[in-house]
Amino acid sequence: MANSKYEYVKSFEQPDVLLPNTWIVVRIDGRGFHKLSDYYGFIKPNDRRALDLMNAAAVGVMKDLPDLCIAYGISDEYSFAFHPNCQLFERRSAKLVTTIVSTFTAHYIYLWGTYFPDTPLQPAALPSFDGRAVMYPNSRIFRDYMSWRQVDCHINNLYNTTFWSMVLQGGMDRREAELELKGTLSSDKNEILFKRFGINYNNEEEIYKKGSVLYRQYQLEEKSDSSMQEETSPLQEDMPSKTQQEKIRKLRRKVQVVVDHVDIIKDEFWERRPWILSGKPGKLPTEAKEVVA
Amino acid sequence: MANSKYEYVKSFEQPDVLLPNTWIVVRIDGRGFHKLSDYYGFIKPNDRRALDLMNAAAVGVMKDLPDLCIAYGISDEYSFAFHPNCQLFERRSAKLVTTIVSTFTAHYIYLWGTYFPDTPLQPAALPSFDGRAVMYPNSRIFRDYMSWRQVDCHINNLYNTTFWSMVLQGGMDRREAELELKGTLSSDKNEILFKRFGINYNNEEEIYKKGSVLYRQYQLEEKSDSSMQEETSPLQEDMPSKTQQEKIRKLRRKVQVVVDHVDIIKDEFWERRPWILSGKPGKLPTEAKEVVA
Amino acid sequence: MANSKYEYVKSFEQPDVLLPNTWIVVRIDGRGFHKLSDYYGFIKPNDRRALDLMNAAAVGVMKDLPDLCIAYGISDEYSFAFHPNCQLFERRSAKLVTTIVSTFTAHYIYLWGTYFPDTPLQPAALPSFDGRAVMYPNSRIFRDYMSWRQVDCHINNLYNTTFWSMVLQGGMDRREAELELKGTLSSDKNEILFKRFGINYNNEEEIYKKGSVLYRQYQLEEKSDSSMQEETSPLQEDMPSKTQQEKIRKLRRKVQVVVDHVDIIKDEFWERRPWILSGKPGKLPTEAKEVVA
Amino acid sequence: MANSKYEYVKSFEQPDVLLPNTWIVVRIDGRGFHKLSDYYGFIKPNDRRALDLMNAAAVGVMKDLPDLCIAYGISDEYSFAFHPNCQLFERRSAKLVTTIVSTFTAHYIYLWGTYFPDTPLQPAALPSFDGRAVMYPNSRIFRDYMSWRQVDCHINNLYNTTFWSMVLQGGMDRREAELELKGTLSSDKNEILFKRFGINYNNEEEIYKKGSVLYRQYQLEEKSDSSMQEETSPLQEDMPSKTQQEKIRKLRRKVQVVVDHVDIIKDEFWERRPWILSGKPGKLPTEAKEVVA
Repeated sequence: MANSKYEYVKSFEQPDVLLPNTWIVVRIDGRGFHKLSDYYGFIKPNDRRALDLMNAAAVGVMKDLPDLCIAYGISDEYSFAFHPNCQLFERRSAKLVTTIVSTFTAHYIYLWGTYFPDTPLQPAALPSFDGRAVMYPNSRIFRDYMSWRQVDCHINNLYNTTFWSMVLQGGMDRREAELELKGTLSSDKNEILFKRFGINYNNEEEIYKKGSVLYRQYQLEEKSDSSMQEETSPLQEDMPSKTQQEKIRKLRRKVQVVVDHVDIIKDEFWERRPWILSGKPGKLPTEAKEVVA
Repeated sequence: MANSKYEYVKSFEQPDVLLPNTWIVVRIDGRGFHKLSDYYGFIKPNDRRALDLMNAAAVGVMKDLPDLCIAYGISDEYSFAFHPNCQLFERRSAKLVTTIVSTFTAHYIYLWGTYFPDTPLQPAALPSFDGRAVMYPNSRIFRDYMSWRQVDCHINNLYNTTFWSMVLQGGMDRREAELELKGTLSSDKNEILFKRFGINYNNEEEIYKKGSVLYRQYQLEEKSDSSMQEETSPLQEDMPSKTQQEKIRKLRRKVQVVVDHVDIIKDEFWERRPWILSGKPGKLPTEAKEVVA
Repeated sequence: MANSKYEYVKSFEQPDVLLPNTWIVVRIDGRGFHKLSDYYGFIKPNDRRALDLMNAAAVGVMKDLPDLCIAYGISDEYSFAFHPNCQLFERRSAKLVTTIVSTFTAHYIYLWGTYFPDTPLQPAALPSFDGRAVMYPNSRIFRDYMSWRQVDCHINNLYNTTFWSMVLQGGMDRREAELELKGTLSSDKNEILFKRFGINYNNEEEIYKKGSVLYRQYQLEEKSDSSMQEETSPLQEDMPSKTQQEKIRKLRRKVQVVVDHVDIIKDEFWERRPWILSGKPGKLPTEAKEVVA
Repeated sequence: MANSKYEYVKSFEQPDVLLPNTWIVVRIDGRGFHKLSDYYGFIKPNDRRALDLMNAAAVGVMKDLPDLCIAYGISDEYSFAFHPNCQLFERRSAKLVTTIVSTFTAHYIYLWGTYFPDTPLQPAALPSFDGRAVMYPNSRIFRDYMSWRQVDCHINNLYNTTFWSMVLQGGMDRREAELELKGTLSSDKNEILFKRFGINYNNEEEIYKKGSVLYRQYQLEEKSDSSMQEETSPLQEDMPSKTQQEKIRKLRRKVQVVVDHVDIIKDEFWERRPWILSGKPGKLPTEAKEVVA
């Protein structure tokens, strides 16, 4: 067969299977969004349309990939998490990352017109995203990752809210504002906002302060101290077979994906939604109570 | 600083820098395009609109990423190649792959309507792509990779052309056609095409038989036996600095990207376009002679 | 500086840091020990001198590398484990594996004459070992690894004891014995041993049936059901600093390394020696009660 | 089968196959040899016994592993190189590195008494080595690696010779000598040696100035300008099959391993020994002309 002469080049492909039984987080970031947000005239410090578009694209990803159990987004970045029991694409890193990046991009471009009806995309400045996969060996560290992102959301949003108030309302020069904010504490920024601009930061919208968390909506559990004690690392005998995986995927596709703006640092979020850390489906809700995408 | 408590999770990110001085090929593939091409009614065996859309998206990628020196596409797959002297993103694998996959997807979705004006995309069936990076240690092996893809193009296209002739023109059942083609040689397929359907395979369009090769259009060199003798692995002292890289990128952006359907297995293609394997810019053409995107 | 011209070759060295917060097991294996054990006339099925030499070399490794918290050996293989909080050599894989392999080899060769006084080593047939590092994300899976090796020890030893009884005492041909044992259950082998050779497998020496487990001897805890409940994955704030690491190493060097031949599959072993899974030093024993190396 | 319950832990072993068609260099280094050389009273700046022992151990490695095509040693480090066509252990990195480190250690410990008859090894201070594998994509870069090590040998030896002359013959304090040498050029050190101690550095022994290069002794070629022009990257069709590999190994085992102290930076060394870069056996020498181990 003529092809065999060249087929040896396949042997240069190197395996990239991620370690079994670890959390996999794929974080994607907008490429050059600083410039891009200027180009398309995003509102500062937060453009609600842009965030809603990010969330809508992320919901699209969650729906297309039922193996995903939670996602968290701030600004132009989104983190998508697979449970340690995930076997999708045999856990091949490049396959997982590129699938998420591409699916996200597809939805983002497709939905652009819905969120920016008056600002058509230009072919020379199409939004795009890069991404990477990171493994976390247990739920505690995975939660620390999620907390890290939400703390970052808070820090960045407080800074940006103050900075843009100083510039847009206070008429300050950007460099001037930057200089004044250098080294300030949270309390300083809160005070600037309140005293100079009459803004109580606590009253800012939750989506800006907390970011957006996406998950499948099963029935919420009563808060209980014991629920976090369960071992969340899956036993080998609980690892789903290929057929079971397909079944679980089908079930998950039917569960609604929720976009929430709540604290994910404290235990309560996780205790009331034990299916996220356990990787096992919860009970279907009798009625959906929250904003559902 | 409040954040530091969680920031340790960054230490779980593992480096993925590709070996210096090797060719990097990023190959992307349509996800579930078999089903998708049915869904959107792609013409069999080759849908010219779909191929033109693939090529247009690939041109978009070549323009956005001037570090790319050549690309080759067949069906729903595309291979993009970086020269061994490429330093883009410090050669981080995930960054390179996701950037290409995302940029390609963005152009593909954005341009869909241009090539399929009567078949709007449906949000539940958006096209997406996965991808991977592979290293090839020298130009000979890299060319073998390219040859492998073009041989594959030929094999698949001859098969598909014959198969769909038997089904669409010959009225055969798909399984029946598959069964008859099993184990046949190229000559057998050529004969079926000619005797039963009056098709001379040689007269099929080049884009179907050869696939599509994209490169920057400098002035073609006269064919010479010696040109291939040059060492193409870059010397360390020739490795461009960061500033030089930016300069080279700027220059490359100005050069037109050509979509060609020619033999890339024989030496001639490479000898007449020495800038591809050398990684050094050629002379700007006095006038463009080929189809230019 | 003359050297700089070539120093770029250092950039081809790729990082190989293992994922933080995972168990690291380095398993080493004798190279060609089947042939080597014939060459030096090892007694079949178990040569006590050879096993004692393996254990002595492993004790040498444990003493030289106080970061190791447990080791387990059978036949010509040994597994050495680092706790998830281990920071030795920044967790670089090659550095960890080669240090263990080399240190083990050094002790093995050095001590050979002590255990084989009448069989001097020959330069053309020096024993050597290869090795690899594997990560396990939590204590449960790490314990499953250890159980895997001990089950293997049992399976192999029962087989070998039966096989060599048939050959050496029963005068059977090797192939004949192999054929008869094919497909037999443990109970079958026990019966062969007992009925044909009067051997009660339960009375065989523990070192052959259980393998050898090495650990630092702190004061044993009373068995308790709760002790296993503790989270053994170290909190970030408990990660020892460089200075603390050195301190811990010094302390550990003073603790005696024990060679034991006991069940490590059931919980009891781990419950009574909580310092192994916790990675925190136990109480020093008032008096050593077991065989101490 | 009882074992299967735990056997899943094998799935945590990750592949580590090195890229095909690249040079593989395994460099090993003595662990803590600064302290160790004091402990065993090595002569400064160069202990001929210690270097001869290193070389003898390296010859042992070359003999045990016929796939190795060249080795180069200075001080307490040794680099062993496999040709791009090497298929040993399927090119698994850990297997290659640990085998070399262990084999080297075994010979080193075994031969210690031959080179240090009056200084027996102490069990608490056994020499050991760590190592790592690095890939180099072509012969030019591989040669740059070798040049890097030989330039390092020169730089270190000139420094050490001067430093120890100042200390041992000049009676200077170590810090004093260090301080005076800081920032000096080669010419300065040559002058210090000559003027103060009557030492002409050029007359120092070649083994100290050039290090030691080991290779298999085929018939030397006449120097020719053209010999370097050959493509040394092996064609796929020249890749040896498993049976051919075994045959080649057998042939190589018969060829004597030479310990040489010559320039390996200039072309001559490689031109006259084309079998090293080509990976193909040379002609057997009619008579051995050089020092043979």
